[in-house]
Amino acid sequence: MSDEPKPVGVGLVGYGYWGPNLARNFIRQADCQLVAIHDSDPDALGKAGQFFPLARLEDSFDDLLSNRGIDAIAIATPVSTHFELASRALQAGKDVLVEKPLAHNVAEAKSLIEMAEKNGSILAVDHTFLYSGAVRKIRELIESGSIGEIIYLDSVRINLGLFQHDVNVVYDLAPHDLSIALYQLGQEPVSVQVSGKPYSSGGKEALAYIHMEFANGVVAHFHVSWISPVKIRRMVITGTEKMIIYDDLDPMEKVRVYDKSVVIHEDDTDSVNQMLVDYRTGDMIAPKLSLREALDLEAEEFIKSVRSREAPVSDGRFGLKVMKILEACCLSLKQDGRKITMEEIG
Amino acid sequence: MSDEPKPVGVGLVGYGYWGPNLARNFIRQADCQLVAIHDSDPDALGKAGQFFPLARLEDSFDDLLSNRGIDAIAIATPVSTHFELASRALQAGKDVLVEKPLAHNVAEAKSLIEMAEKNGSILAVDHTFLYSGAVRKIRELIESGSIGEIIYLDSVRINLGLFQHDVNVVYDLAPHDLSIALYQLGQEPVSVQVSGKPYSSGGKEALAYIHMEFANGVVAHFHVSWISPVKIRRMVITGTEKMIIYDDLDPMEKVRVYDKSVVIHEDDTDSVNQMLVDYRTGDMIAPKLSLREALDLEAEEFIKSVRSREAPVSDGRFGLKVMKILEACCLSLKQDGRKITMEEIG
Amino acid sequence: MSDEPKPVGVGLVGYGYWGPNLARNFIRQADCQLVAIHDSDPDALGKAGQFFPLARLEDSFDDLLSNRGIDAIAIATPVSTHFELASRALQAGKDVLVEKPLAHNVAEAKSLIEMAEKNGSILAVDHTFLYSGAVRKIRELIESGSIGEIIYLDSVRINLGLFQHDVNVVYDLAPHDLSIALYQLGQEPVSVQVSGKPYSSGGKEALAYIHMEFANGVVAHFHVSWISPVKIRRMVITGTEKMIIYDDLDPMEKVRVYDKSVVIHEDDTDSVNQMLVDYRTGDMIAPKLSLREALDLEAEEFIKSVRSREAPVSDGRFGLKVMKILEACCLSLKQDGRKITMEEIG
Amino acid sequence: MSDEPKPVGVGLVGYGYWGPNLARNFIRQADCQLVAIHDSDPDALGKAGQFFPLARLEDSFDDLLSNRGIDAIAIATPVSTHFELASRALQAGKDVLVEKPLAHNVAEAKSLIEMAEKNGSILAVDHTFLYSGAVRKIRELIESGSIGEIIYLDSVRINLGLFQHDVNVVYDLAPHDLSIALYQLGQEPVSVQVSGKPYSSGGKEALAYIHMEFANGVVAHFHVSWISPVKIRRMVITGTEKMIIYDDLDPMEKVRVYDKSVVIHEDDTDSVNQMLVDYRTGDMIAPKLSLREALDLEAEEFIKSVRSREAPVSDGRFGLKVMKILEACCLSLKQDGRKITMEEIG
Repeated sequence: MSDEPKPVGVGLVGYGYWGPNLARNFIRQADCQLVAIHDSDPDALGKAGQFFPLARLEDSFDDLLSNRGIDAIAIATPVSTHFELASRALQAGKDVLVEKPLAHNVAEAKSLIEMAEKNGSILAVDHTFLYSGAVRKIRELIESGSIGEIIYLDSVRINLGLFQHDVNVVYDLAPHDLSIALYQLGQEPVSVQVSGKPYSSGGKEALAYIHMEFANGVVAHFHVSWISPVKIRRMVITGTEKMIIYDDLDPMEKVRVYDKSVVIHEDDTDSVNQMLVDYRTGDMIAPKLSLREALDLEAEEFIKSVRSREAPVSDGRFGLKVMKILEACCLSLKQDGRKITMEEIG
Repeated sequence: MSDEPKPVGVGLVGYGYWGPNLARNFIRQADCQLVAIHDSDPDALGKAGQFFPLARLEDSFDDLLSNRGIDAIAIATPVSTHFELASRALQAGKDVLVEKPLAHNVAEAKSLIEMAEKNGSILAVDHTFLYSGAVRKIRELIESGSIGEIIYLDSVRINLGLFQHDVNVVYDLAPHDLSIALYQLGQEPVSVQVSGKPYSSGGKEALAYIHMEFANGVVAHFHVSWISPVKIRRMVITGTEKMIIYDDLDPMEKVRVYDKSVVIHEDDTDSVNQMLVDYRTGDMIAPKLSLREALDLEAEEFIKSVRSREAPVSDGRFGLKVMKILEACCLSLKQDGRKITMEEIG
Repeated sequence: MSDEPKPVGVGLVGYGYWGPNLARNFIRQADCQLVAIHDSDPDALGKAGQFFPLARLEDSFDDLLSNRGIDAIAIATPVSTHFELASRALQAGKDVLVEKPLAHNVAEAKSLIEMAEKNGSILAVDHTFLYSGAVRKIRELIESGSIGEIIYLDSVRINLGLFQHDVNVVYDLAPHDLSIALYQLGQEPVSVQVSGKPYSSGGKEALAYIHMEFANGVVAHFHVSWISPVKIRRMVITGTEKMIIYDDLDPMEKVRVYDKSVVIHEDDTDSVNQMLVDYRTGDMIAPKLSLREALDLEAEEFIKSVRSREAPVSDGRFGLKVMKILEACCLSLKQDGRKITMEEIG
Repeated sequence: MSDEPKPVGVGLVGYGYWGPNLARNFIRQADCQLVAIHDSDPDALGKAGQFFPLARLEDSFDDLLSNRGIDAIAIATPVSTHFELASRALQAGKDVLVEKPLAHNVAEAKSLIEMAEKNGSILAVDHTFLYSGAVRKIRELIESGSIGEIIYLDSVRINLGLFQHDVNVVYDLAPHDLSIALYQLGQEPVSVQVSGKPYSSGGKEALAYIHMEFANGVVAHFHVSWISPVKIRRMVITGTEKMIIYDDLDPMEKVRVYDKSVVIHEDDTDSVNQMLVDYRTGDMIAPKLSLREALDLEAEEFIKSVRSREAPVSDGRFGLKVMKILEACCLSLKQDGRKITMEEIG
């Protein structure tokens, strides 16, 4: 009907590992049209055409930029290209969704945010997990206060993985966990310390342990690895009232909330001021979770942002917070595991 | 028969959490007699009498020392008392088995070893896991060379635990994993770095991450916690040929050996010297393990040492290695997570 | 104190696999004394003496019967001896606890009940699971109505097991599940049908499937096996409001209550009266369970029955219900899997 | 190139739950072209067009039959329509792949086989599991003799499922397990006995237990259910040398081979000829499996059959064997669980 607004036109650059998922979820959105796809590899582009025959296949990124039917550009290319592609898209007046991490370093990320804010463009970062039923449910539980104050967060994301050529395991895997942790904890760390190890000397880190401290005493720890025999995706969040296990590989019960807590009795009877520490244990509840694909919700919220001009949950500023931690990680790795204060990163 | 040697007489001090297990396993040994038990708490002693009616119940530790029927003394008391009790026992000419950790600090541990060596006494430390079917099988696999060179070892030992009053979580839980790691890796670390956190301010650490580096580049990481909602006891050992998961809570398959490895192709065709990293995956084997209780084998080997005068696997020197790491952990915790070189410990 | 009643004196016959557990739990009871133990095998009796040195070791069962300090006799011997030992104990005026199953056949069981009732003796059957935290919690949930009406109960109890010499797998394993099912469903079946198979021809059944139907349409199915590579102990109970999984081997969450159900919409709009069947799914709750050892509670309740003269939960009449089903199972097995009505058993 | 043979042209009828999977896998095949799709529901057809834009969308099944570019027709429609669609396709000279089960009853299945054989057409039944890495590996192990003689096979396929309107749970779920069992055991049963239960009176069976006996004494048992709170897909195969667990939901180790077996010692010393039954336990191996999607291999083998005119593994005759068991199941259900001999089915 003539009153209906024109659907948001999306152009996709990069049809490798992640691009097909973005394409599939954009075409699902009622209010959106996947106008064109560009990949510099003709084979990849051919494959895109097979699955998305209604999208134009463009040999050049410029063709996306100059296409007036394209309102927003989704970037699913290697990290090293994010800055150039995103800045060109922003400068061409497009809204932008960039695959995580936002850029290769903090300076690039800040520059992109600045461009976007100057232009009034939407800049979103594809931290997909923030849109999953599990992560949203945990956020809801924490916000409701039922978990109490958070004591620590421990995350393990390991598997026998395809080594990335352009980035180490921290840049490859940790953005997922860092984005989840920032979202759940609602604050940025004050320091970051990392121990890492390449598989063989001279290679990029294939294993890393990241330790973060927060102003209020919370600690968060992340184990990421490409060289584990088994795949584990598990986060523990211990609160003063309840404790949560988030196991992303559990097909039935990804989130488990344990009604368990530490109980501290001040021992008044004793002249020696001794704390008596005990614990309490009750039911475990695995709450019902939304089964909707995270990327479907993300695509919907991105399209909504394009329409409403309101920033999405994982906007450029959120992506920058992740970038700053990644940069602190790199610095700590370079300096033999020194504890880096976030003030050093700026 | 008159030719049979007199059984080894054992005296037990401490009938709290662990003492009953020692008692139960010593009386199982054909070649051993549990002569007497001492605990300063009369209730504990009464309980001991109920289950071990043939043992003398002694009000005083001195009664164990002066009892000429007692050849060896097993010490299952709080860590802070280990040094005093063990040194008195050694000075009384007894052989000694001390619950882990050997002592409160390195100086004490060294002093005990010195006494034992001067007297020609057996000094054993109760690192029980070294006697388990799983740990022995893993050792066998590593020694056989089938795992290849070890790349890293990651250990998680967490649960919602009874807080100890006299020690932090590092002293309580880590001795298990440190002893297993030292046994499997066959070498001592060059540096130790620890991040820890008490549950509430002013308390002892209830959570800690220990990171160790070895001269040959191997890294080992340990997560110990009293404040996790779930109990996990899992170790990953990644080698260049195979990878091992040791899950001590798995009732069926505690040890899994994955025929998986990283494969590095040197890419000669390319002028840029790029490594192509791939991986290989084959069968998984869960080897048959001895189901014998670890403490039963440990008691047997201790009695054998008493007879043969040969040091057991976890002798004082082994216990000292664990102590040195524990002391490095304490120092790192006090110095805000600084990386401590083992040379600093001496 | 002089006012305190004399503890209940218990005599134990049979110190093989199960006897030690009974002995250990009786001596735990404040109000009970393990007076004497009899086993016809001198080695077993010697072992009993080692662990229970305060109990008299009797060479003859008659010595238990004639001992006036013994109020109750616990029978933990092979099934084929239950009737003779229990009837002699009852005739000697003792209260009796018999290991499951109560007897070898219904006639024996009825006869024992008759003797006990004539004498006013307590006759209890050791259906231990009825005293476990998990089974009691499930009973509580069903009684509260929150599960709705039960639709079916499915039970799997399989492992690679020690073959019993005197009974088949139905008599060995099914009494556990039958007792749990009768307790949960609160009614007896109207028919029983069994398919079984020996491991090798001529042997006793090592595998069996038992199918029971109830007057109200409920069905219960039991898979018992000695020849499964893995150990499974799992019961599913589907209700019209909620569904339960009881996994006795889960160390953390033996009982899981799923807020799931089938929803039937009568389709009124359609002239064809078609049922639209859908389902509803909500949270899963693993309720906190009592961690008390089942046999400890059972021993306590048995001692209470001896004092109060009130029948325990698993009294002779309950044991008879189990026996009747076992006898129907045997008949069905003999008659090539014919469906046996319980009326045939009488 | 001009020498290359024309790809096999496939027409698909039915674009509901399963059709998209068939379409996706046919277009993957190098040697195959998905020429046209028909579905009587215009919405379904529209959806097909979105994902398979190169295929013709046909309003009428006749258009598939008359299309000379179509060599073979894949049928993914409700069971009740299989016979009509398949017989029309065969009569039009097409090769046919029918979704399982082949037809609604044995007479229909036999008639289809007859038509196919008269025409020399390929008739395949889509028993997808026969093409999975797990099922093929198990077959290989059994054929190699390393499992020994099979004693029993037990299968559980349960979940909270969408109730089918036109068939009961036996027709919906059991064809998977029956096809796997027939493939592994390499023989047909001599009798079938079924107990089933609708969720509510008057409905189709939502729960069923199928028990089959084979001439050589093997038994196979199947538990299928739409009303279980949890999803289980597990098969146990016990052999005289080894035992297998096939857990189709295990993401890592779908097939586990246990080096366990029952050991029978003939007891010569005893005049009573008593068998001593013991067991032996060794390593467990989870063999590496092909990760290829089953339907991809199935599509490849179907295309090969079309080219070579050789029957595929799951041809019409294989599908008929499954049908005969399904029909025996129905008869047993109608006759209150009577054991049906396969001779009655004919």
